[in-house]
Formats: sequence, C-alpha cells, structure tokens
Amino acid sequence: MKIVIAGLGNIGGSFALAIKSNAPEHEVYAIDIDAESLRDAEDGGLIRKGFESPEAIIPHADLIIFSVYPMTLKSLVAEYAPYFKENVVLTDVTGVKRSIIEEIEPLLSDDADFIFGHPMAGRENRGLSFASGEVFRDANYLFTPTPGNKPENIEMLTAFVREIGFRNVTSITPDFHDEVIGFTSQLAHVIAVSLINSDDPVRDTKAYTGDSYRDLTRITNINEKLWPELFIMNKDHLLNHIDGFKEQLDQLTKAIENEDVETMQEMMIESRHRYHDLHNLDESDWT
Amino acid sequence: MKIVIAGLGNIGGSFALAIKSNAPEHEVYAIDIDAESLRDAEDGGLIRKGFESPEAIIPHADLIIFSVYPMTLKSLVAEYAPYFKENVVLTDVTGVKRSIIEEIEPLLSDDADFIFGHPMAGRENRGLSFASGEVFRDANYLFTPTPGNKPENIEMLTAFVREIGFRNVTSITPDFHDEVIGFTSQLAHVIAVSLINSDDPVRDTKAYTGDSYRDLTRITNINEKLWPELFIMNKDHLLNHIDGFKEQLDQLTKAIENEDVETMQEMMIESRHRYHDLHNLDESDWT
Repeated sequence: MKIVIAGLGNIGGSFALAIKSNAPEHEVYAIDIDAESLRDAEDGGLIRKGFESPEAIIPHADLIIFSVYPMTLKSLVAEYAPYFKENVVLTDVTGVKRSIIEEIEPLLSDDADFIFGHPMAGRENRGLSFASGEVFRDANYLFTPTPGNKPENIEMLTAFVREIGFRNVTSITPDFHDEVIGFTSQLAHVIAVSLINSDDPVRDTKAYTGDSYRDLTRITNINEKLWPELFIMNKDHLLNHIDGFKEQLDQLTKAIENEDVETMQEMMIESRHRYHDLHNLDESDWT
Repeated sequence: MKIVIAGLGNIGGSFALAIKSNAPEHEVYAIDIDAESLRDAEDGGLIRKGFESPEAIIPHADLIIFSVYPMTLKSLVAEYAPYFKENVVLTDVTGVKRSIIEEIEPLLSDDADFIFGHPMAGRENRGLSFASGEVFRDANYLFTPTPGNKPENIEMLTAFVREIGFRNVTSITPDFHDEVIGFTSQLAHVIAVSLINSDDPVRDTKAYTGDSYRDLTRITNINEKLWPELFIMNKDHLLNHIDGFKEQLDQLTKAIENEDVETMQEMMIESRHRYHDLHNLDESDWT
C-alpha cells in the first residue's frame, strides 16, 4: 500500500526505517516542513519521495501515519482532510488518547477511519537497533479503537505494526490507555525529573553514581515542548498516580524514621515480588 | 600477595573472578559457611582453597576483603582478629561508612590497617561481563580513609582495585560518602520501591510498560535483609534527601494541577541540563 508519514522526526523516521527493513513491499512517502530532512531521507532510500505540503501526495495515501506533537495533530488533520482518498486509514503516535480523540474525530468525514495508536518504542540500544532497522523490535503497541473504526482496518494495522517489528499489539479503551500510561510513563517522568532536580549541584554527584541513579534518571533528557502538554491532557489520572506514589513514599519514610525494620522488610519483599512478576522471573539473584 | 575473601557471595565471588582474570599473580583463598560454594569455587579455579573457619588461613593473609552484610561484619572481624598476621591490610564493601567505622576500629590492634571501601559495581550487562571476568570493568570505587590508615596501604589498595577493573578510585571522608551515597543509591532505592508498590495489581501493568517504568524499577529486586540496615545506619542523610526530593515532586505536582506550562518547562530544561552534565553529553537527541 501507499503510506504517507506526516512528520519525519524521531518516530516518523523510525517508521520509515522499520518499513524499509521489514516490509519493503509498501511505498513510503513523507511530508515534513524540513526540506533537508526530506532530501536526506530520499537520498538514503528511507522514502520514495518527500513533500513539503499535502495536496500532491495525500490523495494517493492508503495509510497516513501522523507522527507529530499532540498540539500539531489537530491542525494537520484539518489541513489534510480535504485531500483524503476515500476509505483512507489514519493513525497517530500520541502518548495520550482521550482528549486527542475528542479533538480529532469531529474533523473526519464518515469514510476516513482514524485508528488511534501508541507505539511504545524502546530507547535502549537504540543506536544499534537503528543501524539494523530493528528499531521497533519486540516493543509494545497500543491501539485505542473507537466505535466508528472498521474491524478490518484494525486487523490490517495490527498486522502491519507486527510486520515492522512490534511484538505485543493490544487494543484497549482510550480511558484505560490514559490511566495505565499515566502510571508507567508519565509518573515515571515526573519522578525522574524531581529526583535529578533535587541533586545538590555543589556535590559533583556524577563522580559517585552507580547504576541506581543512572537507571532512575535515564528519562530526564526530556523534551519540554512535548511533556507539559501530555501531563495536562492526562491531568486527572496523573495526579491520582502521584498521590498513590506519595502514599507509599510516606509509608517507607515513616518506617525509616521509626527504624521500623519489619515494615521496611515487608515493603521490600512486596517490591521484589512485583519485580519478579514484571520480568516473569523466578525469585533469585538479588541486587 | 595472599588474599582472603571473607564471604564468597555475589560481591566476594566477583572479586575472586576479577582477580583471577586480571591479576592472577595473587593467591586467593576464601572463607564461607557454605562448604558447597567453596568446593564449587575451588573446582572452577576461582580460589586456591576454601575454608569454613579462619584459624588455618587468616594468619597467612596479607589482605582480607570482608564481603559480608554490615550486621555480620563486626562479629567476623572480632572472630578473625586474634589470627591477623602483623601489618595485615583489611577492607570491606559496605554501602555505609560512618557507623561501620565506629563499630570496627575499636576491635583492631594498632598494626592492623583497615581501609574502609565501597565498590560501586555495575549490574548492567552483568551476565556478559561476568562470563568474561570483566565484572568490575569501569565501575567506581570509593575509599574512606581514616587518620590511622597508612598512605602506602591506601596506595596499594588503590592500585589493586584498578588492576582488577575499577576505573575511578576516589578517597573521600566517611561522612561525605554517606551523604552522597544516601542520595545516589539509597534515595534511588526508596523511590523505586515506592513506585512499584504503588502499582495497582489489578491493572496487569506489565503488558503496558515501555522502558521508562522498567528503568525506574530495575533496582526493586531488593534484598530486604540488607537494605533496612543500610537505611537506618544512614538515617540522617537519607531523610534529608527524601525531603529534598519531595520538595521537587510537590513543586512539579502543583505545576501540573495549575496547568502551569512555564514552570513545568523550566523544571524540564533544568533536568535536561543535569542529564547532559551527568552523562558528559552535548545537548541533543531528546527522548
């Protein structure tokens, strides 16, 4: 099929690469405001052709992957909508769903099928996997179907993202998506930013870090143009999760204050069980 | 020299392996209560010979590496002290220093030189590096010399740990050690345990995790026999660091509540600067 990637940034470029490496039968085009990125992608064989505006290519697209900031998505869909081919399939990569879906669905004609999605692409070993085209290998993909989506298009997209490397492809409700991502991704970013910002710069901490601190601050290389928007769009769930975390933190802090070994041990045994469950491991090899 | 490793667990075994691979000129012996571990280590060529009690081997040791739990250290030093060779050098691997030093120093004769230390061994790619004997490759080592330590012994130990793979070997005061480790290691463990324990088990979170959550909970496979002890021994510094973290967390939470994009952006720009400083990077490649 003819695929248009709208926004050839980090994620859009990864899609182009993953398709080229794993599903070269598709024709991939891209739209971006950065002419140089488009030329580079053409020269590198990542895309067939790049466009700086939609009118010449959108009418031919069977699938459009919008890989842009959430605040850009609405205006881009509105701009492209007049050119959509009949029965076009659309998808996005945004990390929150409820408010995005609410904004976008009114813009669509009845035959345009927007299946909202969230590729949970790994960052670890990104360089290596990028070089080999395995940039999405074994990552998770979440779709949040709405009542208007056609089942055959959901099936098609599911098969497509599996083909380009994703392993677990799951369909969940937009609200459950936002609840669980608010915990696994957004809360994690809130904590990591708070931790690294609480460091005392006078200390030259980096000379004394082991893996723990580096693990917990690895996601602090954060994009401030994107994340405040995501936090606000998911404010209700995120604030709930912060409360839950603070309850646990306060309980552990109190146990330390009181030198209450028993409570600390119970909390650590619980955390170890959860670690093993998360990683599908037997209980062995403590850190 | 003749080295005795007292306690052939995870860290003790790593020392044996690192010496075998990088400094095979030394004769390595071990004492452990687990006879089977000792036989395995002998059979694998990790140690020359294992002992279940100190009297036959401690009198020959030039260097004793105590790699045991902090609560075991005091009784073990007391038990071995009558057998110490003149001018023996001793070291430990405990993650807190002030209270340990206070407990141990009174047990020592004048000629026994205990140089307290803390190997900050990496866990990442442990399997691979373990197989190649590079288990300590490029990790940090902290020594916390006391007024009684002989400079030539500090030099000897520094050279020795460099020889077996450690890169940055730093001497700092016991109090500064406990302050900085309270931040980079203990606070990180407190946060990680609180995060994973705040998960809602009904949710089956593991189906929806990306790297963020796995990064932040990697250290929750925690040993509840060790860590409450470490937390209590370093209570003053740790509680201070928890307070500092909570201040930042509260500030960010308030900005989310108020949809205060400007404050969120300032905090994220700050965290990104700190990330780049921690990793000695230029500012590029946002996540």
